[in-house]
Amino acid sequence: MNNSINKIITKREFPGSKKVYVKGERHNIDVAMREIHISNTIDFAGNEIVNENITVYDTSGLYTDPNYDVDIAEGLPKIRRDWILKRGDVEELPAMSSEYGKQRLEDDNLNEIRFKNHIHKPLRAKKGKNVSQYHYAKQGIITPEMEYIAIRENQKIDSYNKELTKHHAGENFGHKMPKTHITPEFVCKEIAEGRAVLPANINHQETEPMIIGRNFLVKINANIGNSPTTSSIAEEVEKMVWAIRWGADTVMDLSTGANIHETREWIIRNSPVPIGTVPLYQTLEKVNGKVEELNWEIYKDTLIEQAEQGVDYFTIHAGLLLHHVPMTARRMTGIVSRGGSIMAKWMLHYHKENFLYTHFEDICDILGQYDVGISLGDGLRPGSIYDANDKAQFAELEALGELTKIARRKDVQVIIEGPGHVPMQMIKENMDKQIKDCLDAPFYTLGPLTTDIAPGYDHITSAIGAAQIAWYGTAMLCYVTPKEHLGLPNKEDVREGVVTYKLAAHAADLAKGHPVAQIRDNAVSKARFEFRWRDQFNLALDPEKALEFHDETLNDEGYKSTPYCSMCGEHFCSMKTTQELRLMAGKQNKYSKKELGEKLANKAESFRKQGSELYK
Amino acid sequence: MNNSINKIITKREFPGSKKVYVKGERHNIDVAMREIHISNTIDFAGNEIVNENITVYDTSGLYTDPNYDVDIAEGLPKIRRDWILKRGDVEELPAMSSEYGKQRLEDDNLNEIRFKNHIHKPLRAKKGKNVSQYHYAKQGIITPEMEYIAIRENQKIDSYNKELTKHHAGENFGHKMPKTHITPEFVCKEIAEGRAVLPANINHQETEPMIIGRNFLVKINANIGNSPTTSSIAEEVEKMVWAIRWGADTVMDLSTGANIHETREWIIRNSPVPIGTVPLYQTLEKVNGKVEELNWEIYKDTLIEQAEQGVDYFTIHAGLLLHHVPMTARRMTGIVSRGGSIMAKWMLHYHKENFLYTHFEDICDILGQYDVGISLGDGLRPGSIYDANDKAQFAELEALGELTKIARRKDVQVIIEGPGHVPMQMIKENMDKQIKDCLDAPFYTLGPLTTDIAPGYDHITSAIGAAQIAWYGTAMLCYVTPKEHLGLPNKEDVREGVVTYKLAAHAADLAKGHPVAQIRDNAVSKARFEFRWRDQFNLALDPEKALEFHDETLNDEGYKSTPYCSMCGEHFCSMKTTQELRLMAGKQNKYSKKELGEKLANKAESFRKQGSELYK
Repeated sequence: MNNSINKIITKREFPGSKKVYVKGERHNIDVAMREIHISNTIDFAGNEIVNENITVYDTSGLYTDPNYDVDIAEGLPKIRRDWILKRGDVEELPAMSSEYGKQRLEDDNLNEIRFKNHIHKPLRAKKGKNVSQYHYAKQGIITPEMEYIAIRENQKIDSYNKELTKHHAGENFGHKMPKTHITPEFVCKEIAEGRAVLPANINHQETEPMIIGRNFLVKINANIGNSPTTSSIAEEVEKMVWAIRWGADTVMDLSTGANIHETREWIIRNSPVPIGTVPLYQTLEKVNGKVEELNWEIYKDTLIEQAEQGVDYFTIHAGLLLHHVPMTARRMTGIVSRGGSIMAKWMLHYHKENFLYTHFEDICDILGQYDVGISLGDGLRPGSIYDANDKAQFAELEALGELTKIARRKDVQVIIEGPGHVPMQMIKENMDKQIKDCLDAPFYTLGPLTTDIAPGYDHITSAIGAAQIAWYGTAMLCYVTPKEHLGLPNKEDVREGVVTYKLAAHAADLAKGHPVAQIRDNAVSKARFEFRWRDQFNLALDPEKALEFHDETLNDEGYKSTPYCSMCGEHFCSMKTTQELRLMAGKQNKYSKKELGEKLANKAESFRKQGSELYK
Repeated sequence: MNNSINKIITKREFPGSKKVYVKGERHNIDVAMREIHISNTIDFAGNEIVNENITVYDTSGLYTDPNYDVDIAEGLPKIRRDWILKRGDVEELPAMSSEYGKQRLEDDNLNEIRFKNHIHKPLRAKKGKNVSQYHYAKQGIITPEMEYIAIRENQKIDSYNKELTKHHAGENFGHKMPKTHITPEFVCKEIAEGRAVLPANINHQETEPMIIGRNFLVKINANIGNSPTTSSIAEEVEKMVWAIRWGADTVMDLSTGANIHETREWIIRNSPVPIGTVPLYQTLEKVNGKVEELNWEIYKDTLIEQAEQGVDYFTIHAGLLLHHVPMTARRMTGIVSRGGSIMAKWMLHYHKENFLYTHFEDICDILGQYDVGISLGDGLRPGSIYDANDKAQFAELEALGELTKIARRKDVQVIIEGPGHVPMQMIKENMDKQIKDCLDAPFYTLGPLTTDIAPGYDHITSAIGAAQIAWYGTAMLCYVTPKEHLGLPNKEDVREGVVTYKLAAHAADLAKGHPVAQIRDNAVSKARFEFRWRDQFNLALDPEKALEFHDETLNDEGYKSTPYCSMCGEHFCSMKTTQELRLMAGKQNKYSKKELGEKLANKAESFRKQGSELYK
């Protein structure tokens, strides 16, 4: 199996790019980034001007580092292990403490599909200890994870041509995005105040630390997972590698099929990004899909099983309460959250309060021992424009606020899940209410879709809402693929969904005024204007597609430097004409290139007043 | 040629739909709409409940009417001819009055490609008359075109179940969208006040009237056009038919290749939507691409040539002035409008003011004789995030405001073109400034793109901006395809671009609170919840893609009624669970379906207070 699994994993590097590592100042850390080579500019006088390379945020891990050959059977290097052990607050267990975990380990029938390299000696907090990054942050401790994030978010901003980073300060809706730099202290403070989370299970030591909070780059999540009828373990690992290649900041494994436990192990051991799950799904599988057989004990064992494997955050539908269910009776589309509908059914069957709610403190106590974050599920998110912002949705949101307080008291990191389907004019109310009710905890939304009438294009109906809500303050966006509402996404759908969400997140980063964001836009635009086609492709979120589209009509290498493309053709290329125009202006004035720009701009006003001729 | 041209035209009807015609009350008009058949609901008790069919706005013309076989060689029926002649203010010319038009007609080499059915007897206003819809509206005359639009925009709203049209009144930014109905009087008033335009050249008698204004449905435009190396006349006609099939409300023919005159004739004679052009392009072709040979006389003859063929609106870059050019000197991407860069080059060459500006009154005098609308081109729109909202852009916008006043004085309909590339937080400023500077004239924007970093996905980077700016008040959106910046779009790109823009426009219609908009969303959502898969596909903006995506994993006919899809599978379908839940609740209560909904909703509050059991 090991050979075959490696074969299907995508390991090609990005064109014109190399992986670089930036050293920490406080800690012994190497922060991974992708550096994109930028060619020199040839100006209209024929002079060659050197352009700086651009470094961009990179979620793809070692899979795009040609100097490292990832062996899926071995898993990624455990870069965080020393950091964790040094803190002195964890112990190594002799074996997994979950009953189900033990059973799976003892089942020899599973040898064939089991991740071989797993030591099965999970870490756990020492008795009475809490090991969450939130716990450290509240004490002012700047962990290596926090420093990693500060460096990663900055992307070497210091080295860029300041002239090119003209920022249009965004209308900020109360965000506190730093104007110049993100410091480790700032990271620590944002976590300490609950405005950001750093998902970092002590048993997922392979992660490259990242942060989710509205004063940082907007993050995106991609869902993967097998289903009863589809996909092997190898395919699931490849789905994860494929999603992070295109920019997924976290990956949720929503498997509901066979061998969920073993599949998850392979995914976590090979993932450089945090992994999230909905433990209720596996719990339901354990009782053969019979909702009435769900109970706290089996759910609790699932939490421990997954926490000891290294899942970084759990979606938990603890805020959907018994009295909320009737509020959905007159909805257009009822309950559209899987977890929400399962818990509603359970509550209705027993006429009892949600056991995730009644056991919420117990849940927090368990998660604090591993630093698993909680993503409070929105079981009552609207599934249609008609149901948006209704009483059911907002009643649950208020309950999530109450649970946030409990999680904070227990030093557990918490984020809040949000809608769903919301027309544009009602999006902001969601964000405002979430910030208020949930005490500034990061918001994590699914879209929202801004109309229901375009199945097949819901990555776009939702990207419109996602970009807006992220601008208003949502910290992480769960992607939607073109197959939403219609079927299981294939590989191309995943790529389309991830890139779409990455561009929506980036649009929000620009709008919020993240100090790094505009550098890449400027680099693309400058390359475009100067007909450096290769640079333009390499700088694109999806370099492969940009190249492919260009080459569909002009595919000779010669066309990679021609001053036009097939869209307007040679004689109608406005950029070519502008270049000629600048050349004309230059000749008429005999100014140097630099002088020219300044003179022309300064003179505009006086020309207007005089109504006279240009360049006299 | 005639046989072959008909073969490649897409004439298939929409699935589950039929073309219906609604009679006018004031005028003898038949307003075309598409009626989508909706199956009956089978409720959880097994009762069959009849659903009303849904009528939607339809731009596809007779090509989707199985009762009419369009013959491209004959052209569409001239439905507006009688309306125009009845007004008694036009005369039929013995032949085209444009010199170039005459030359082309006399050239026997063109017989093979000439549209045979063309009488070549254009209409023109009688001496001293103005025949624009704006001219009529100012006098309070409600034309058949205006009544057509009122009926068309309403989409039979009266007949729908009022319970389902729960509107979330939009935050309106000063729009005056009617709350219930659009009346012919309202249409007339909006045109009279210049807030809306009705593009309707008296020589394009084949159009189904439509309106562009912020208090109506948001419209979209698709660009087509040949280029020196590509496509036959037949292909160009098919591009138009294909674009309107997916929802293009107007089509701009931006041809720059061979036989532009003849190609345009074929397009206009077969187009049920208004056709726009940029006359400067053909003018430049007439002088073999030599910018310095452009002059007013040849441009003027081109205006008359195209006006007499029936072009409904012209993009004219008359607001780009000599003193604006230096303002672009320090831009990241200079001048990215083709027309803008051509005129800038001309001005710089001669050191003279833009001849489109100096002859603007002459232009208006010509266009008023045919009712050709003016779309004032934004030659200085930003081509990158860096250049957004700069001095150059806004200086030109102010000039466009001055020209708007002149056009209004001359009774010529006018719309204003807008950006381009603008980050989200700077979009609203564009809209506000346009409304103020241009006296409420309709805004027609290209996107805007909200980031530059995703070539290959610019239909999406721009749909994000397009939805926002349309919500703020933009009346028409020019589509962007995935090939933007990279190459010439193919057929699938056009479809992707049109549907993407249609959904962005619809998201804005919802946000603005258009009285009709939510009906279709509700119908899709209800069909989705009730697992009426066929209805869901048929109601989708792109029914063919929705079906294709669904069938990729579950393609038997049986799966068109199963209560789940391959996305979550049978056991994890939240909608199925909700249905079961409602059934459970129903059994427990023995309420009727109707009572159930009410009781559950009303009891929610008391349950909360009591903390007691559900459904006691």
